[in-house]
Amino acid sequence: MTDGSPRRLRLGMVGGGPGSTIGETHRHAARFDGRYALVAGVFASDPARSRAFAATLDVPPDRRYGSWEEMAEAEAARRDGVEVVAIMTPNASHHPIARAFLDRGVDVICDKPLAVDLEQALDLLAASRRAGVVLAVTYNYTGYPMVRHARELVRAGELGTVRLVQVEHASGWAATLLEAAGHKQAAWRTTPALAGKSTVVGDLGTHAHHLARFVTGLEITALSAELSTVVPGRASDDNAHVKLRFSNGARGMMWACMAATGHLHGLRLRVYGDQASLEWIQEQPDQLVVRPLDGPHRILSRGAGYLSAPARRVSRLWPGHPEGFLEAFANVYTDVADAVIARRDGGAAPDPGLAPFPTVEDGVLGVKFVEAAVESSRRDGAWVDATLDLGRPGA
Amino acid sequence: MTDGSPRRLRLGMVGGGPGSTIGETHRHAARFDGRYALVAGVFASDPARSRAFAATLDVPPDRRYGSWEEMAEAEAARRDGVEVVAIMTPNASHHPIARAFLDRGVDVICDKPLAVDLEQALDLLAASRRAGVVLAVTYNYTGYPMVRHARELVRAGELGTVRLVQVEHASGWAATLLEAAGHKQAAWRTTPALAGKSTVVGDLGTHAHHLARFVTGLEITALSAELSTVVPGRASDDNAHVKLRFSNGARGMMWACMAATGHLHGLRLRVYGDQASLEWIQEQPDQLVVRPLDGPHRILSRGAGYLSAPARRVSRLWPGHPEGFLEAFANVYTDVADAVIARRDGGAAPDPGLAPFPTVEDGVLGVKFVEAAVESSRRDGAWVDATLDLGRPGA
Amino acid sequence: MTDGSPRRLRLGMVGGGPGSTIGETHRHAARFDGRYALVAGVFASDPARSRAFAATLDVPPDRRYGSWEEMAEAEAARRDGVEVVAIMTPNASHHPIARAFLDRGVDVICDKPLAVDLEQALDLLAASRRAGVVLAVTYNYTGYPMVRHARELVRAGELGTVRLVQVEHASGWAATLLEAAGHKQAAWRTTPALAGKSTVVGDLGTHAHHLARFVTGLEITALSAELSTVVPGRASDDNAHVKLRFSNGARGMMWACMAATGHLHGLRLRVYGDQASLEWIQEQPDQLVVRPLDGPHRILSRGAGYLSAPARRVSRLWPGHPEGFLEAFANVYTDVADAVIARRDGGAAPDPGLAPFPTVEDGVLGVKFVEAAVESSRRDGAWVDATLDLGRPGA
Amino acid sequence: MTDGSPRRLRLGMVGGGPGSTIGETHRHAARFDGRYALVAGVFASDPARSRAFAATLDVPPDRRYGSWEEMAEAEAARRDGVEVVAIMTPNASHHPIARAFLDRGVDVICDKPLAVDLEQALDLLAASRRAGVVLAVTYNYTGYPMVRHARELVRAGELGTVRLVQVEHASGWAATLLEAAGHKQAAWRTTPALAGKSTVVGDLGTHAHHLARFVTGLEITALSAELSTVVPGRASDDNAHVKLRFSNGARGMMWACMAATGHLHGLRLRVYGDQASLEWIQEQPDQLVVRPLDGPHRILSRGAGYLSAPARRVSRLWPGHPEGFLEAFANVYTDVADAVIARRDGGAAPDPGLAPFPTVEDGVLGVKFVEAAVESSRRDGAWVDATLDLGRPGA
Repeated sequence: MTDGSPRRLRLGMVGGGPGSTIGETHRHAARFDGRYALVAGVFASDPARSRAFAATLDVPPDRRYGSWEEMAEAEAARRDGVEVVAIMTPNASHHPIARAFLDRGVDVICDKPLAVDLEQALDLLAASRRAGVVLAVTYNYTGYPMVRHARELVRAGELGTVRLVQVEHASGWAATLLEAAGHKQAAWRTTPALAGKSTVVGDLGTHAHHLARFVTGLEITALSAELSTVVPGRASDDNAHVKLRFSNGARGMMWACMAATGHLHGLRLRVYGDQASLEWIQEQPDQLVVRPLDGPHRILSRGAGYLSAPARRVSRLWPGHPEGFLEAFANVYTDVADAVIARRDGGAAPDPGLAPFPTVEDGVLGVKFVEAAVESSRRDGAWVDATLDLGRPGA
Repeated sequence: MTDGSPRRLRLGMVGGGPGSTIGETHRHAARFDGRYALVAGVFASDPARSRAFAATLDVPPDRRYGSWEEMAEAEAARRDGVEVVAIMTPNASHHPIARAFLDRGVDVICDKPLAVDLEQALDLLAASRRAGVVLAVTYNYTGYPMVRHARELVRAGELGTVRLVQVEHASGWAATLLEAAGHKQAAWRTTPALAGKSTVVGDLGTHAHHLARFVTGLEITALSAELSTVVPGRASDDNAHVKLRFSNGARGMMWACMAATGHLHGLRLRVYGDQASLEWIQEQPDQLVVRPLDGPHRILSRGAGYLSAPARRVSRLWPGHPEGFLEAFANVYTDVADAVIARRDGGAAPDPGLAPFPTVEDGVLGVKFVEAAVESSRRDGAWVDATLDLGRPGA
Repeated sequence: MTDGSPRRLRLGMVGGGPGSTIGETHRHAARFDGRYALVAGVFASDPARSRAFAATLDVPPDRRYGSWEEMAEAEAARRDGVEVVAIMTPNASHHPIARAFLDRGVDVICDKPLAVDLEQALDLLAASRRAGVVLAVTYNYTGYPMVRHARELVRAGELGTVRLVQVEHASGWAATLLEAAGHKQAAWRTTPALAGKSTVVGDLGTHAHHLARFVTGLEITALSAELSTVVPGRASDDNAHVKLRFSNGARGMMWACMAATGHLHGLRLRVYGDQASLEWIQEQPDQLVVRPLDGPHRILSRGAGYLSAPARRVSRLWPGHPEGFLEAFANVYTDVADAVIARRDGGAAPDPGLAPFPTVEDGVLGVKFVEAAVESSRRDGAWVDATLDLGRPGA
Repeated sequence: MTDGSPRRLRLGMVGGGPGSTIGETHRHAARFDGRYALVAGVFASDPARSRAFAATLDVPPDRRYGSWEEMAEAEAARRDGVEVVAIMTPNASHHPIARAFLDRGVDVICDKPLAVDLEQALDLLAASRRAGVVLAVTYNYTGYPMVRHARELVRAGELGTVRLVQVEHASGWAATLLEAAGHKQAAWRTTPALAGKSTVVGDLGTHAHHLARFVTGLEITALSAELSTVVPGRASDDNAHVKLRFSNGARGMMWACMAATGHLHGLRLRVYGDQASLEWIQEQPDQLVVRPLDGPHRILSRGAGYLSAPARRVSRLWPGHPEGFLEAFANVYTDVADAVIARRDGGAAPDPGLAPFPTVEDGVLGVKFVEAAVESSRRDGAWVDATLDLGRPGA
């Protein structure tokens, strides 16, 4: 490194083996900016399969593990052990795996939802604070440059006072009973023991929840939810209709759905202030639409010189040269790398305004949101408190 | 008429005077297909202004009235009195005006909401059935060809079983306190005594309510609503978030808003079946998007030969030659003309499948919807029954 | 009229009989604003059919004519004869019909192209100047409010110096050999004796030609064209690729096509200045896109308060309530009415900046454009002069 | 590799140093699928700067070169010398650099245009055939999955006979005189000695040229061009209007521009057959629009199961999870890797139908196209032959 070559974090992975697109996604994200080197991992529950797959990723033979327990122990014993571990297993295993690494001082990047109940989530919060490490949660959509610009517009007051928030993550991926047809993702996601108390809120609603909080800077204080199952034969919910109240008095709605026939991805955020509104649609991520009270609608483009510093910082290409899902995911990884390296190497911590990756606190609030939605739905849509006092980070 | 010239209904108008765009709209709609001749009217509360304005419309001098009471009486006494009267006054006056004409055997076209409470609405239903006349309500968006085609797609089973309905009518027209700035429309619409129990549900929510029912063929059985006021200083509500349950078990959401900053019109319907979904956006009315479970998304165009008979029947121009709001409004007027002429002249009643104009029953259900939303909101979002047994039309 | 009722011009029609959508369009346009009363006409070549059809339009029995010659003579003899005649016959008959009425002092609204050769066109120019009457040509797309606003943007310098113009009118209506399948429109339009020297440039290219001139305020000085026939068996051209040079040195391209498979209408204009560019697409006529050198793209909406006076003047409805093809056509009719009434009744002539309907001069230049394109194509794409000195209007 | 780890090609780079986005792009593309290891390079004309930059890329110290001549010689002398070299220098240097490596048996990936004149281009063709190596040209847009699907649609006859092709690459990046403001890219691109005979056709027109050929499977046989300079003070052309004739008789137009004010990227292809047309716009690369003669327009989405095998093969993510420019660029790199590895390691050559990367022949035809356009423009738009007999690849 004395000669100018970059600092790379030693990364381990748990999950994301053969055939897993989310595994591929994490690896692309880690590799994108050259900030991580994948040096260890367990990629499948079958040890032989895990090791064979690790080989295809150039993981050194002695660090191709058969279980996460083995990996946690062995890596902790190495001088050159993993510095960061990324977890992309079914939800129910996030907690034990994350604990094993947090307790050994390893920084963690964990898929959302952080855990399957609030107790687990709070335990991870405590463990990460105790260890003083980073526990990031892959609310990856906040890695999009135009989402970051949206947040800046709200912060700068360009929307005025936020009054209304309409957010939806309505996908069509599970509009049929895929789980009965051998679809592995669908199988575990619709099994409450693996996925948690609400499949659709945990998987999609938490993204919408975080996106709305991230852009508006507001907390969701209460909700009234109806969870339902629209695909006959499904063991979990697959649709959620939620009314929202925000910390400044704003009102909102969320629609989370995995059975919206014909939809592709379906994440969309609209925020209405008293001066302007904005709309961002994940399927056209390079655009942000701003609609002022008076005057023409405006379409802002990623890469443009007129964007805010936080948006420009994570934009890689000229305007009109599309960036996508992987770049956004990579931005989260790279922001985490900055924070981890600052912590480990003693540099200045990155400005969270510029590098705002989703933290364990965001993850805990996501789990709280799931639980509140489940409770409200069970109580026929009663308004349920969605707030949580998380104390001070670092306290 | 023996020589081939068309049958024109003698039309009277109440409301829609100087500066009223809705008045202009009704007159365009009546004139569009040459099915009505405007022969009488009262256009303003001030008799002199009313008469002066009537002159600009070529209304004969003796039929330029100073009040609707005068008009109802005088026209009833004429051999060539009005056959149809169109009412476009503030909501609270719909009931007395409509009653006056219904009771004299005049067919009525009334703006929505039909009335400001259910008692009034049911009274108009009874009066119209007693008189045996047509009482149509201007849910004008059902006049769009692609809305009619959407209904046919559902009827033909192309969507399969309807599971989810997302509807919104979120306009930005009153995102500021217009009523304090002398805006006449805003002034009466935000005055509960004139507009009714809910401004936003009455004005916009009833359109969304009818559109969803019209296209899906389902009834809304229950709702959970939160009505709110997002513009400070406003005397009425201006935002409604509503969860919906449909008669076949489908779930849905409605967003009705008149303060969605930056929005223009904002009516949009999405219906999800187990085979396909559809989306229609009023601001691009010539398009209907259909998204099948598998296969490419499809954009259907007004005027195309592949459309259903009810859609082709009300399409006037070649594809790609835009039709708009006035044409749709005119389609409702023309469908009403067919029904009224059949009734008056003894011809065959038009097939309601082909000429499905909104009836008094639709209007009553709209008022019921308003009341249910108000009650639910008062009860903190409790689920409220939205059904009503209207008996048989004609019974 | 002393009582406030409006001045209506007595209108006659030639063409546009049973089954003619363009006939319907003209009648809607004339009726839209109540500025014309249809009092005479010949609607079909067969006198009986013509008269029967006239009856359905409420034309008085004695003014249902069997031929345009008869109509011209009879109407000229009446005290209450037609003041304006609208001509919508196949192109080759425009000249004799228009001459007959112009020479009798009747104002004329003529479909484009004005004539089938330049000699005819210049003759009509001379005749109209001699008679001192209005001869308007239905380049109807200039009736759209957002096209008028586009012109104002150029005039106001918001685009800076115009450098490039890309215009296309590429329709798919005749992508098959319709004329062999009994399609009447296709039959005459692909018959050079009826349609003129170039079908596609005459029918579609002239619209594009006028639109480009109208918005930019520039003249097309030279062109290099290739006319081709892409549908096998067709007797006329159906595709034109044209390079353009403009009077200020700007360059451009035109694509005119009636065989663009899958297209609906296909008229689109893009103008690039050194400060900004604009784009207007007829199929979304209520929008105008402006793209500045720097800064977000802007979508301007018809009906908005920020538009120019000429655009607001011809906008009828609130933003987001779509207007379409018929409203635009009506705007041309109404502008013509203003001009004719000023001429006939002695009022002030309307400001052509505010009411810029297409004149005979525009029609003549359109015919010149057709001839230049034909000549260039015959000469293998040689650059051909497209200018013409028309003298001063009124001179 | 015996343990399952992947085969990585040893890659060298020439050009793309500090601040170069195209350099970043090539490196992302090489890294994306883990098929290349960057082991050597020269990144700037100043040796010290080049070496310092190489360090940041983890290039081993002894392979951080000061000039391409040095690199070519030194790498050829190594047992583990580079297998592939990627060239991203200004156009005029492509030829000598590529020759140096081709002649040493190194496979080459070269930016477009391949060379600044046809003589150079043919020399590279001959050199690559002589050496029997791969010389790929980065017409990177053919790496997009939906472009590959478009080609399959044409091949499968879904468009019928291709009749018309409209292609444009009209960017706004150089709408001002950037080169006078110290913009390095603009400076060399507008210097004919560095960029070649036509800046705009070489830089943008060649992309459009290749895209049209790639999708249609047709050759462009003749053209009529007008090259112009629309930005005052510019030393090169910046706009090209070109009429095209294709090998099956189809007609077309190309617009290439770097001064289209307000445009972002501006590559768009439309192909019209007698059965359907297709449209692809690079700024929304995950969509392909197909418009049949009859029936609804269809929007096809990347990642969908209904796509062709060549499209599915290069799709990485689920539908609705946007992929972009870097993924497409990477697809070209990966296809080249397959071909190079097959050549070097003796495996089966990949099916060019499945892995259709742009070859030296495509590069030569691009240069021929530039020369033909320049000649036509000089001859006032005369039709110029654009064909070239390249013999058999491998011959």
